[in-house]
Amino acid sequence: MRALGIDPGSRVTGWGVVERTGSSLRSLGSGTIRLGADALPDRLARLLVECGRLLDAWRPTAVVVERNFVSQNVQSAFRLGEVRGVVLACAASAGLPVAEYSPAAVKLAAVGHGRADKESVIRGVTAVLRLAVPPPSDAADALAVALCHLQQAPLDAALARALRAARR
Amino acid sequence: MRALGIDPGSRVTGWGVVERTGSSLRSLGSGTIRLGADALPDRLARLLVECGRLLDAWRPTAVVVERNFVSQNVQSAFRLGEVRGVVLACAASAGLPVAEYSPAAVKLAAVGHGRADKESVIRGVTAVLRLAVPPPSDAADALAVALCHLQQAPLDAALARALRAARR
Repeated sequence: MRALGIDPGSRVTGWGVVERTGSSLRSLGSGTIRLGADALPDRLARLLVECGRLLDAWRPTAVVVERNFVSQNVQSAFRLGEVRGVVLACAASAGLPVAEYSPAAVKLAAVGHGRADKESVIRGVTAVLRLAVPPPSDAADALAVALCHLQQAPLDAALARALRAARR
Repeated sequence: MRALGIDPGSRVTGWGVVERTGSSLRSLGSGTIRLGADALPDRLARLLVECGRLLDAWRPTAVVVERNFVSQNVQSAFRLGEVRGVVLACAASAGLPVAEYSPAAVKLAAVGHGRADKESVIRGVTAVLRLAVPPPSDAADALAVALCHLQQAPLDAALARALRAARR
């Protein structure tokens, strides 16, 4: 299982690729996409291209994003929604499953509790994935969401098997 | 000048194509894209395909959308933003200029004042474009936004010319 985590932002979008082999988790790469100062439609078109490139380059088995519950205000929710929409459309266009997790679940996966700040998430993913260098915050958030999926997905699959067995 | 107006919605997205020849405005077609009950990423991927088809089919010179100022709440702003983001990315990916107008400007173009309800917009575009049959509301909103652009763009161009001349 190889998860591409994406942390969409209206200026900077973080990404991170984590692979699970047995019980071992490994970061294959992470980084940020800076959308710059172009007009909004051009920024979104560029994001569509860059997301497609990430999928081509890393061949993930799933794309994972944080589920957004809150935003400072309606305007910032619109702006963040636009970026999220492009990421989700790109992933589904490539035929990939998209998983979403709450911010609390993502922090729990990276740090061990659901109310961590940005610095704790950076330290958490650096420790869990044994990274030589702490990643920048947006990339760390993306690695954390990928990590969350790879910890959660086997549990979800085991639960589904148990439920199927119980119904027989 | 041929404008493709798009009225993004999380369930139904309206579209309408209006052409300007001299001072004459004519509707070439309008309709709705229903995104159905699939998972959100699949709906957005389908919207990306359908928007691309509209651009191929109608070859507009500009894509026009309403600028969103308000939303019932942050959650609906996220959902609407996701749809908007896909539409904007699709237009910019095709190299087309994207114009945005406020809801009040769009209503002014279709109805003559800025506080019209949905029925008035339907009646307004039906009258201005001399349509044989009133379009459904989402398509009417899309025709209104296209109309707004085609009424506004020559004024904006004249203003820009006047400002350039004044600077000489």
